[in-house]
Amino acid sequence: MTAAAHRVVIVGAGFGGLAAARALKDAPVEVTVVDRMNHHLFQPLLYQVATALLPPGDIAPAIRDVLHGQRNAKVLLGEVVGFDTTGKHVEVVLSDGASRELSYDTLVVAAGATDSYFGHDEWREVARPMKTLADAIDLRSRLLSAFENAAAAESAEECDRWMTIAIVGAGPTGVELAGQVAAMARRTLRKQFRGLLDPTRVRVVLMDAVDSVLPPFSPKLREHTKRTLEKLGVEVLLGKKVTDVDGDGVVYEPGEQRLPARTVIWSAGVKASPLAEELAKATGAESDRKGRVLVRPDCAIPEHPEVFAIGDMISLDEIPGVAAPAIQEGRYVAKVISARLAGNPAPEPFRYNDRGTMATVSPGDAVADVRGLKLTGLIGKLAWVAVHLAFLVGWRNRAAVLFKWAWLVTTGRRSQRIILEPAHAQKITRTHRS
Amino acid sequence: MTAAAHRVVIVGAGFGGLAAARALKDAPVEVTVVDRMNHHLFQPLLYQVATALLPPGDIAPAIRDVLHGQRNAKVLLGEVVGFDTTGKHVEVVLSDGASRELSYDTLVVAAGATDSYFGHDEWREVARPMKTLADAIDLRSRLLSAFENAAAAESAEECDRWMTIAIVGAGPTGVELAGQVAAMARRTLRKQFRGLLDPTRVRVVLMDAVDSVLPPFSPKLREHTKRTLEKLGVEVLLGKKVTDVDGDGVVYEPGEQRLPARTVIWSAGVKASPLAEELAKATGAESDRKGRVLVRPDCAIPEHPEVFAIGDMISLDEIPGVAAPAIQEGRYVAKVISARLAGNPAPEPFRYNDRGTMATVSPGDAVADVRGLKLTGLIGKLAWVAVHLAFLVGWRNRAAVLFKWAWLVTTGRRSQRIILEPAHAQKITRTHRS
Repeated sequence: MTAAAHRVVIVGAGFGGLAAARALKDAPVEVTVVDRMNHHLFQPLLYQVATALLPPGDIAPAIRDVLHGQRNAKVLLGEVVGFDTTGKHVEVVLSDGASRELSYDTLVVAAGATDSYFGHDEWREVARPMKTLADAIDLRSRLLSAFENAAAAESAEECDRWMTIAIVGAGPTGVELAGQVAAMARRTLRKQFRGLLDPTRVRVVLMDAVDSVLPPFSPKLREHTKRTLEKLGVEVLLGKKVTDVDGDGVVYEPGEQRLPARTVIWSAGVKASPLAEELAKATGAESDRKGRVLVRPDCAIPEHPEVFAIGDMISLDEIPGVAAPAIQEGRYVAKVISARLAGNPAPEPFRYNDRGTMATVSPGDAVADVRGLKLTGLIGKLAWVAVHLAFLVGWRNRAAVLFKWAWLVTTGRRSQRIILEPAHAQKITRTHRS
Repeated sequence: MTAAAHRVVIVGAGFGGLAAARALKDAPVEVTVVDRMNHHLFQPLLYQVATALLPPGDIAPAIRDVLHGQRNAKVLLGEVVGFDTTGKHVEVVLSDGASRELSYDTLVVAAGATDSYFGHDEWREVARPMKTLADAIDLRSRLLSAFENAAAAESAEECDRWMTIAIVGAGPTGVELAGQVAAMARRTLRKQFRGLLDPTRVRVVLMDAVDSVLPPFSPKLREHTKRTLEKLGVEVLLGKKVTDVDGDGVVYEPGEQRLPARTVIWSAGVKASPLAEELAKATGAESDRKGRVLVRPDCAIPEHPEVFAIGDMISLDEIPGVAAPAIQEGRYVAKVISARLAGNPAPEPFRYNDRGTMATVSPGDAVADVRGLKLTGLIGKLAWVAVHLAFLVGWRNRAAVLFKWAWLVTTGRRSQRIILEPAHAQKITRTHRS
C-alpha cells in the first residue's frame, strides 16, 4: 500500500459496500469505508432484536472487526454530507463535529434506503420505523412496556388499547414482525402475567393498502402466509389505506375506520437514502420517484465512469431492494475496478442472479421461492435458517444466534427483555412525543 | 392466594428485594415486587457491558422471568414516589403516567443506591456514572467513539486527548473498569486501527483522593492490585482530589493540575436512593450522611415493625454496600415475616455472614479475600469466575457469559461493539452536553 495506490472510497458498510470492500482485497487499491455507524447491520434479523430474542451485537459486527484482516482497507466513522465530483472528494462530518475531505480516484456509493412515510413524516413519532438498531431497541421498549401498561390498566378499554399492536405494511418486515410479536405474546409472556392479563388476548393487526401480504411472492405462498398468520392469531387487514396515525391508534380507509392501538409499527415504505439525492445533484444523474439514482448497466453514474452506486439507493432493471442484489453489485463493481486497473476489457453489464426470496412467518413456518421451487412449513423454515446463518457475518454470531433460536424453541424464553429507561422516564418520553 | 392473604410489597428488584421475594415463596403471603425498571441488574458485571463484552440481556433478566415460577408473586413496573405509613400504602407512578396506591400489610424497601457527585451534580454530564444499564451503554458508546475520534484526529494533541480515559474513584468498580478498558485497547483494538493510531498508547488513568486502591482489601492485596494495573499500562494516581471536571478533562489537587481527557468515568461515590429520604420522612427514621436509613437490628424501621429496609439504602453495623449482605438481609427479613405470621418467636437480630470480597484486576488476575484467605493471580481469577457465575441469575445467562469470556480469552474479540447513534447525532449530543 503506497502513497500512489489507487484510492477507492466506499460510502456505506451495508451489504453492498462491505461486499465491494472485501472483493477488492487483492486489488492494487487503498480502500476507505466510511459509514455513519460503527457497525454493519444484518437487517434481515432486526425484527428479532425488536422482539427481545437477539442482542444487537449478534447481528451487528463492528465494521473494523469485519475488515480487520484486510490490509488494504481502512474504516472511517463519519457522516458523508456531500460529493464533489469535480474535485473528486466526499465531504465527511466526524462524530466529534470536525469536517474532512476524503479524496478518491474511484467512488462507490452504497448508502442504502430509509423508511418513507409518503409525505406524512409527522406520523413517525407514533408509527415507529424499524430500520436501525436504535429503532429496534426503541420498538423493543415499546412492545415490552405495552404489556406492562396493559397489566396495570384500570379499565378494560385502556387494557385493550395497550394490548393492540398495529403493524402497517405487510411486506416481509411486517409479516416477520407480526408473526414474532404474536409468538412472543402467546408463548414467552403467557405465564408471566398470571392474574394480571391474558396475553392470548393480545391483538396483532397487520394491515396494508394492497390486497395481499408479501407482494413479491407467488399467489400460493401469499395465501399460505396469510392463513398461517391468522392461525397464529394475527388479524390481517388488506386493502386498507392508512389515512392518519396518532397516539390513540390508526385511522384507515375505506370508511374512516379507527383501530385503537397504543403501539404502531411502520413497515409500509422505503425510499433511497438522502445521499442519493446529493449524488444526483453532484453528478447530474436522474432519480426515480423513490429517490433512487438511475445508473448505467455497469452500476456507474452516467458521464462519471469513476463513480458507482449500488444497492437499495439505485434503480436498475427493477431489481428488488434486498440484500442479495446489493452483494452481487458490490462484487461486480469491484471486478469492474480491478479490470480497469489491470487494463483488461470491462466485464459484461451487471446481471442479477436471482436465487430466490424467503420470509419467516411463524416459529415453525417460512415461505421460500427458490428458482421456482416453492417451500412452506418446516422445510421452508429450515431453508430460511440455513440461508440466514450463512449470510450472517462471522462464526461467533452464527453460533450465538443458533443458540438463542434453540433456547427459544426449547424453553420459549427470550433473554433480551430490556427496557432501558426507568418507568418514569418512559412516561415523560411518551407524553412528550404524542 | 386468597383476598385475605397477607400483602407484602417489596420496593426494588435488586439483590435484596429479589432475595426477599424468593424467600417468601412458601409463605402464606401475596408478594408484589415493584420496580422502576423491568429487569434485575447484576451490577458486578456491568463494567463488562460498558466494555463491549456482554450484551445487556446476559446480566439483566426480566423480573417477571426470574419470578415466573413463583405463584404468590406479582410484578409491577412503576416508580415509587412516596410512602403513606399511616394508610399503609405506597404511591406508584406507572410508565404510562397513571398513579396507583399499592396497599401493604408488610413493606420491604430495597431501593438501593445511586451515584454521588458530592454536591457537584453538574459534573455528571461529563464525568459519566456507571450504575444502570443505560449508563453502561452510554459509556460503551463514549469509549468506542473515543477511539474512532482519536483515529480521525488531525493533531497529536487532539488524538492524545481522545486516547486518555480518566476514571475517578479506585474502588472495585474503578479498578475493574480500568483493567478492562486497558485490556480492550491493547488486545481487542490493536490490529483494527492499523496505520491510524497505536492503541497501546491509550492512557487509562485511575485516580482517587485516598492513598490506596480498593480500600476494603488488605494492604498486600491493594499493593498487588496497583502493581498489576500498572503492568497492564494503567496509570494509578492516588492522593489526588478532583476539584473540577469539564469537557477538556479533570482538574485535581494538590497543585491544581489538569489531566486532559475527553472521556471521564465517575466511580467515586454512592449515596442511598432518594427513596431512603422519602422513607425517613414518612416514618421519622434517622439517616446518615450518605442518606442511608438507620434501621433496628432486625432491619425494621424504628416504631414501624411492619416496615423493613434492606440493602445499600440502610445503615447497619458498618456492613458494606455490596450484593452479599443485601441478599442475606432479604432472606432474613423473609424469615422474620414468616415467623410473625406463624406466631413463632422472632429470629435473632440480623448478623452479616461475611464470606469475603473480590475484584478482578486484569484478564488473568483477580484479588480475593475469603475469610482471611488471600488469593491473587490466576487462582484469584478462577475463584472470581466461579463466584460470579454462581451469583448470576439463570443457567442461560451463566452459559452465555461463560461463552463470551472463553471467546475473549481465545480470540481477544468483543462482540458487542455497538455505537447506537449515528456519527452526526453523537456530535450533536456531545456539543450539547459539554
